[in-house]
Amino acid sequence: MLKKVAVIMGSDSDLSIVKDAINILKDFEIKTEVHIMSAHRTPKHACEFASNAKENGFGVIICAAGKAAHLAGVIAAHTTLPVIGIPIKSSTLDGLDALLSTVQMPKGIPVATVAIDGAANAALLAVQILAVNDCELSAKLDDMRNEMTKEVIEKDKKLQAELNKQI
Amino acid sequence: MLKKVAVIMGSDSDLSIVKDAINILKDFEIKTEVHIMSAHRTPKHACEFASNAKENGFGVIICAAGKAAHLAGVIAAHTTLPVIGIPIKSSTLDGLDALLSTVQMPKGIPVATVAIDGAANAALLAVQILAVNDCELSAKLDDMRNEMTKEVIEKDKKLQAELNKQI
Amino acid sequence: MLKKVAVIMGSDSDLSIVKDAINILKDFEIKTEVHIMSAHRTPKHACEFASNAKENGFGVIICAAGKAAHLAGVIAAHTTLPVIGIPIKSSTLDGLDALLSTVQMPKGIPVATVAIDGAANAALLAVQILAVNDCELSAKLDDMRNEMTKEVIEKDKKLQAELNKQI
Amino acid sequence: MLKKVAVIMGSDSDLSIVKDAINILKDFEIKTEVHIMSAHRTPKHACEFASNAKENGFGVIICAAGKAAHLAGVIAAHTTLPVIGIPIKSSTLDGLDALLSTVQMPKGIPVATVAIDGAANAALLAVQILAVNDCELSAKLDDMRNEMTKEVIEKDKKLQAELNKQI
Amino acid sequence: MLKKVAVIMGSDSDLSIVKDAINILKDFEIKTEVHIMSAHRTPKHACEFASNAKENGFGVIICAAGKAAHLAGVIAAHTTLPVIGIPIKSSTLDGLDALLSTVQMPKGIPVATVAIDGAANAALLAVQILAVNDCELSAKLDDMRNEMTKEVIEKDKKLQAELNKQI
Amino acid sequence: MLKKVAVIMGSDSDLSIVKDAINILKDFEIKTEVHIMSAHRTPKHACEFASNAKENGFGVIICAAGKAAHLAGVIAAHTTLPVIGIPIKSSTLDGLDALLSTVQMPKGIPVATVAIDGAANAALLAVQILAVNDCELSAKLDDMRNEMTKEVIEKDKKLQAELNKQI
Amino acid sequence: MLKKVAVIMGSDSDLSIVKDAINILKDFEIKTEVHIMSAHRTPKHACEFASNAKENGFGVIICAAGKAAHLAGVIAAHTTLPVIGIPIKSSTLDGLDALLSTVQMPKGIPVATVAIDGAANAALLAVQILAVNDCELSAKLDDMRNEMTKEVIEKDKKLQAELNKQI
Amino acid sequence: MLKKVAVIMGSDSDLSIVKDAINILKDFEIKTEVHIMSAHRTPKHACEFASNAKENGFGVIICAAGKAAHLAGVIAAHTTLPVIGIPIKSSTLDGLDALLSTVQMPKGIPVATVAIDGAANAALLAVQILAVNDCELSAKLDDMRNEMTKEVIEKDKKLQAELNKQI
Repeated sequence: MLKKVAVIMGSDSDLSIVKDAINILKDFEIKTEVHIMSAHRTPKHACEFASNAKENGFGVIICAAGKAAHLAGVIAAHTTLPVIGIPIKSSTLDGLDALLSTVQMPKGIPVATVAIDGAANAALLAVQILAVNDCELSAKLDDMRNEMTKEVIEKDKKLQAELNKQI
Repeated sequence: MLKKVAVIMGSDSDLSIVKDAINILKDFEIKTEVHIMSAHRTPKHACEFASNAKENGFGVIICAAGKAAHLAGVIAAHTTLPVIGIPIKSSTLDGLDALLSTVQMPKGIPVATVAIDGAANAALLAVQILAVNDCELSAKLDDMRNEMTKEVIEKDKKLQAELNKQI
Repeated sequence: MLKKVAVIMGSDSDLSIVKDAINILKDFEIKTEVHIMSAHRTPKHACEFASNAKENGFGVIICAAGKAAHLAGVIAAHTTLPVIGIPIKSSTLDGLDALLSTVQMPKGIPVATVAIDGAANAALLAVQILAVNDCELSAKLDDMRNEMTKEVIEKDKKLQAELNKQI
Repeated sequence: MLKKVAVIMGSDSDLSIVKDAINILKDFEIKTEVHIMSAHRTPKHACEFASNAKENGFGVIICAAGKAAHLAGVIAAHTTLPVIGIPIKSSTLDGLDALLSTVQMPKGIPVATVAIDGAANAALLAVQILAVNDCELSAKLDDMRNEMTKEVIEKDKKLQAELNKQI
Repeated sequence: MLKKVAVIMGSDSDLSIVKDAINILKDFEIKTEVHIMSAHRTPKHACEFASNAKENGFGVIICAAGKAAHLAGVIAAHTTLPVIGIPIKSSTLDGLDALLSTVQMPKGIPVATVAIDGAANAALLAVQILAVNDCELSAKLDDMRNEMTKEVIEKDKKLQAELNKQI
Repeated sequence: MLKKVAVIMGSDSDLSIVKDAINILKDFEIKTEVHIMSAHRTPKHACEFASNAKENGFGVIICAAGKAAHLAGVIAAHTTLPVIGIPIKSSTLDGLDALLSTVQMPKGIPVATVAIDGAANAALLAVQILAVNDCELSAKLDDMRNEMTKEVIEKDKKLQAELNKQI
Repeated sequence: MLKKVAVIMGSDSDLSIVKDAINILKDFEIKTEVHIMSAHRTPKHACEFASNAKENGFGVIICAAGKAAHLAGVIAAHTTLPVIGIPIKSSTLDGLDALLSTVQMPKGIPVATVAIDGAANAALLAVQILAVNDCELSAKLDDMRNEMTKEVIEKDKKLQAELNKQI
Repeated sequence: MLKKVAVIMGSDSDLSIVKDAINILKDFEIKTEVHIMSAHRTPKHACEFASNAKENGFGVIICAAGKAAHLAGVIAAHTTLPVIGIPIKSSTLDGLDALLSTVQMPKGIPVATVAIDGAANAALLAVQILAVNDCELSAKLDDMRNEMTKEVIEKDKKLQAELNKQI
């Protein structure tokens, strides 16, 4: 049976970014649990969640946090499941602080980091991970990729048409 | 049967960093293929490798590149397998160029980015991904984690001893 | 006969910046083709376009992309035509990611990079390249330059007048 | 009775920097405990240490870590004692990653951050904190400050002498 | 008797950020003095204030300043009380200038630096320092921390409810 | 007849980097003139050279400079020939100052910027520009590209052999 | 007789920032000439102006420019008068490009650089330079400084009053 | 009579950089006083020196400091003489901290900042300032500039000779 994905955000203010991830996981019909948990304000809950995630049926944990974004690293310290980190841009430093705090993990505890505010890609990466041993899910990913390609080609055609009209 | 891992580096000069990844994958007895392939100098080989990777039995692709590090992104564009990017520090800008070129991927094509020169973590992340549906491998990861914890505790004890001697 | 210029953007959202380039190329009566093609979402189309660009009569290819901007590098990997890269500023990191991803190309595959969001200069650079062996076009460039100089002188005079009025 | 100071480093490789702090605390005759504990490799030990630090007689905790330096933040999440963070420069990014990971803490959990590799100042800050309610220690700090001033004046005089000799 | 806290800002434009600190100190019933003093425009007042702060009953001095933020360092040069620095984001460079000017203090004169615009944490840090020898205040801090934890848990529950409703 | 290429460096200390460009231009049998000229120390010579470059038979001007690298921009202000800028890394800031000073040109005066210390790519770009209307030179570029591809493939094979030996 | 000050901006769009400088120079009754001149678009006018500035009675030249801000450096290359550079923030990179392009001048040609968008300080610095040998002007500067000090003290008092009212 | 120049460094470790400035001032036969004074370790001496500098016959004050380089700003706060700041590169952050701490001064207190480690230019700028009302000194500056130009031309000739020999 397909493992679940956990989506954890450090603050409810991250939800506007994180919902992109939730929607994509829903599109792929992945069972998903969403939580607000903070590495700093609810550290025990976060550690406990991570420690039990494997036996609770999770396959991947996505963590979103801003500023000194410790959430993904702290979760990763309590599990050997793949942990995906989304650095969230806050009011200063344009997301560079969250990016470095998430990606520059020391040897032994990896965090799979995606782009600043890159919630959609975090979800896709989670699906890709679950699809490594699931042909059906893997095929769905290929379909979505083809769909995406078609959309760009469609937009290119539309642009050609518009530009030709102008002439 | 356990999927294979591919380790691709953009230049043979990256090998001194990348061998950490190769060794860890060997420790876990993961079947690994190592290649020098460049997004810019052998783009067709790279694309072809990526396009066929899934049916060739790969589960994860690790890509290491420096400067304007396009390798991971280009590989990811030709497969829906999870792609892990290792930004390599080169002679200028201290690795920031490779980090941003690897992690800031646009919506639709994720690259799971680890720390600059973080080859060991790239390998561990690959193992974690393969272990999502492999209890035995997952247990090995937990063992390694426990080993790592013991090492730190050992070092702490040793430090206590040294500091006490000095007094 | 004068070669054509291709203007490729990674996403239709780049059009608001890129149109400056299109307009300048039109002013110089350069035959121009504009496309939306993505290094990541339509990689095959992009590679094919680049591979055939020389025999299809193109002399220069302009590529605009944001974030981990691989487009110019990927195009440059498939042609030996001069490729001009416009790094596009996106919602995070103020364009630094696109700049470094575009300009820091490894040895062997140059990308002629202009300023962040510098679409007008990309077009002028393309015209300068085509004008190397075209006296008429070269003379037009000199005329435009003189025009530009006159405009600044005019603005300076206007400023003098305004400042004197205030006294 | 004067509270103890804990000095925690994330890795034994940090000791060459951290010993400056240990020596200064010794000079002030502050009871000090030094540990290697990692937010990622021994998270439980670190959390437990922090949780019990107050009742174990500690007044201040100094934490040194490099890269995605989560140690100070994780310790601070488990105690309301003042936590001082020393960002350690590592092989990439010149310490900027450790600085931002340490100082950019979210609302509610402060970390008193000193300069990159600023172990001596971390120790002095710890002494200043303990001295808030300890006149004797406060006087010692003033003495040390005066000594420091005298040293600079002495160096200035020496420089004058040297420069005059050259003429 | 509990020492006072001084809150000094370099310009009245910093008040919108700094008031978060003032409010938290009020919540903890800490006696607080608030001043506008500039390291550059009223240097003598600033130095005099710092020189006399200890004997005037202050235990901690919080300094907020933007751009080339010298205020905390200058105050710290005239006292051995713990000085907390709040780097303020101004119209250029996103606060990086103030952060580096505040945190990168030379050996001998520490400034306890908090996040850019991190006024609330500066106040909490001041309370933590005063609480090192004040059990009652220390207990209040623990209460506040528990309160904070409860709030996050509450928000998590609310989010669960909302997400379930949508299904 | 093929146009000449000028290679200008701001200081003789840049020669160790710039000689890569000189060698590549020699390999392609491009007529090349090399000069030390400074935007700041010999501004009149630089401006005069640029103003006359077109009628003196030059097709492209390559400029290498470090720190506040104005050379390429100043040359570009006095000609409408394509100007290629090589930002040179100096003893501080890791080349970022030279990169931004070279690439961030204002509207109207483009500089085709290559990577920091990217002298080889500057030369290749110059050849690509001259080859736009020169089939023979264009074929040589394609040959060199194929050679480069072969080298990478050769290195890949060698690596395979070595890795297999180790097993 | 007091020397004149020249205020040169690279583009009329800089006027909104530069007018702060013009007003301060007016307040000090310094004879001022304001010009729009571009290092790139009107290089000859700029060089000529700089070359003749000394004999035309100027004592200081202030230059404001954004992006790859070469104006101050180019002007400084044609005169030995003190040249003051104002880096102007533009739409990308938050002014860092203009700052580095202005301040990182090579040995031999200094530019006295002030803060990003620091037009007022550029004017004050010009007045300070003219005042080195002008007691009257020097006294005016001291008066202005005292006035500035009084204003801050006044604001401090007002703040005290407001804060007391709230209690 | 010509005013004196003061050269102040924050630490004796800065002397290796600062001596370039001392030597140039000696070449121009400017009366110079050199001091080690720290904004943080000898703040009173620094403030006193600055407060009395004008009546003690100084015309310009040069300040060199690293890290959170407050020295120039603190000196500038106590005098209306022109103050020149040299940001000194230290072991972390490549001089960016010292640059921003020196140049980003708030409105009212300018510091004329030169390049990181740019001691020679600081001295030249001081001479330029003193030369505004001293024709003889101004002529010497022009001579030195011409000498510098000749040197570059000489180096260019030498390079031509060498390159021709190689052919």
